[in-house]
Amino acid sequence: MTDSVFDRIAIIGFGLIGSSLARAVKAHGLVRSIVACDSSPDARATIVRLGLADQVTDDPAVAAKDADLVVIAAPLGAYADIVRRMAPSLKHGAIVSDVGSVKAPVLRDLPSLLPEYVQLIPGHPIAGTENSGPASGFETLFEGRWFIMTPAADADPDAIKRVGDLWRGCGSLIEIMEASHHDKVLAITSHLPHLIAYTIVGTAAHLEEDAQSEVIKFSASGFRDFTRIAASDPTMWRDVFLNNREAVLEMLQRFNEDLTVLQRAIRFGEGETLFDLFTRTRAIRRRIIDAQQA
Amino acid sequence: MTDSVFDRIAIIGFGLIGSSLARAVKAHGLVRSIVACDSSPDARATIVRLGLADQVTDDPAVAAKDADLVVIAAPLGAYADIVRRMAPSLKHGAIVSDVGSVKAPVLRDLPSLLPEYVQLIPGHPIAGTENSGPASGFETLFEGRWFIMTPAADADPDAIKRVGDLWRGCGSLIEIMEASHHDKVLAITSHLPHLIAYTIVGTAAHLEEDAQSEVIKFSASGFRDFTRIAASDPTMWRDVFLNNREAVLEMLQRFNEDLTVLQRAIRFGEGETLFDLFTRTRAIRRRIIDAQQA
Repeated sequence: MTDSVFDRIAIIGFGLIGSSLARAVKAHGLVRSIVACDSSPDARATIVRLGLADQVTDDPAVAAKDADLVVIAAPLGAYADIVRRMAPSLKHGAIVSDVGSVKAPVLRDLPSLLPEYVQLIPGHPIAGTENSGPASGFETLFEGRWFIMTPAADADPDAIKRVGDLWRGCGSLIEIMEASHHDKVLAITSHLPHLIAYTIVGTAAHLEEDAQSEVIKFSASGFRDFTRIAASDPTMWRDVFLNNREAVLEMLQRFNEDLTVLQRAIRFGEGETLFDLFTRTRAIRRRIIDAQQA
Repeated sequence: MTDSVFDRIAIIGFGLIGSSLARAVKAHGLVRSIVACDSSPDARATIVRLGLADQVTDDPAVAAKDADLVVIAAPLGAYADIVRRMAPSLKHGAIVSDVGSVKAPVLRDLPSLLPEYVQLIPGHPIAGTENSGPASGFETLFEGRWFIMTPAADADPDAIKRVGDLWRGCGSLIEIMEASHHDKVLAITSHLPHLIAYTIVGTAAHLEEDAQSEVIKFSASGFRDFTRIAASDPTMWRDVFLNNREAVLEMLQRFNEDLTVLQRAIRFGEGETLFDLFTRTRAIRRRIIDAQQA
């Protein structure tokens, strides 16, 4: 057991990430008590049944009261409402953090909604599965995975350190970067791949019913890997695309150009263009395996 | 042990699929002897070292001699040369089959290269991994996976049955369909997903070196799943796209239209369009899990 990093933490939004964080901090003795907050009665019932928190509420104001750290783990579109509701009950010196997949809007919109006596330290764990809800979480989700923090330039170094300590205690590797840089990197590593996966599964969903059944039957040939990604939480992903519009559209433009080159190569039977690209992409896979992120 | 289905089979091209087939037929006692043929000295050394065949050669003519079944498991672009070389030594009544990912060109091009006293029964196992070479194969690769046969309308029913028996013995489920229909179904379930994965990994590979390192570091957020697919054998996939041009370009066109709709929805902040699609794609995933192909 490690010494606890925080006395009391509130986790607002108790899905895959929120419930995994609760499991991990509990397993590693990183906090003394956890209050879980979720707007879904089903989710709250599951949290109680699985004993994932010391207290369960549907009210962010109740959850935030006396909390040393509040982690918002809800879809980005719900942030403003959550923060408005909890702001009055935040205690002096509390830290507010989050796990959202887009960071610049968090730094832009939240400070004006928060009292000046709390510290905002946004973060993003690079980990997940396609499953949702409190029952889908697990304690080892963050082990060996990166946790990116994007604090403002004038954020309190001690608050940054304590949030980092919590995630390090859950097995994460810590990286600090500028919010808009984070959003560009994630546009290519995460947002564009999800958009593409959603699109191709959607293309299959538009086929006539006969063809659709065959797609499902023979999905082991590549398609099923895309369906896994395209099974991710719809609300969360809608909010990601609405909040990281520019970076996603920029990467999508590059992707479209590259796809057009391949389309031409197929149309005109240019085998060498295809072979060259397919060889280069294999090398990228090898680097990911070497970086132990495979 | 099952009764053997064939006395002697030759497997020409001993990579992931060829070597997995050898392992499976041996494990299930489906043949009496296996001759392995591969043009790569490294591959042949591995076959000998791992004891994957009773005889090893680099010459299709030697491999085909006395074989009751010849399975071509090489890239599509190598078929014509292989068949020309082995045709003179094929025995009367032999069956020639394959495992290629495109079927119409096989039925179109091979009959004129084969003696009329052999039966051509093309096939395609819907199974694989991103790894290549004889060491990457494993005996259970085909278990619970589909094997699609695309014989000509006038093919010998007994030959169809025996090829089906062999794959059924390896754990496969058998489907018979028309070659051009196969090529359309696979264009969406396999060829387009691979093309898209190759493209997006290529887009990342075109970023400046700094950004590339970050893509690799934070690849656990979606990107890495695409790199796995984009690590598949370059020669095999070049040949797939060159041989299934029309069906792939048709599916690519549909994909592009769907992607344009999403692009517009992101640009104009149309959250409902995104949410609706993301909900529908989740249902497709559920059907694949129900069909036990996840």
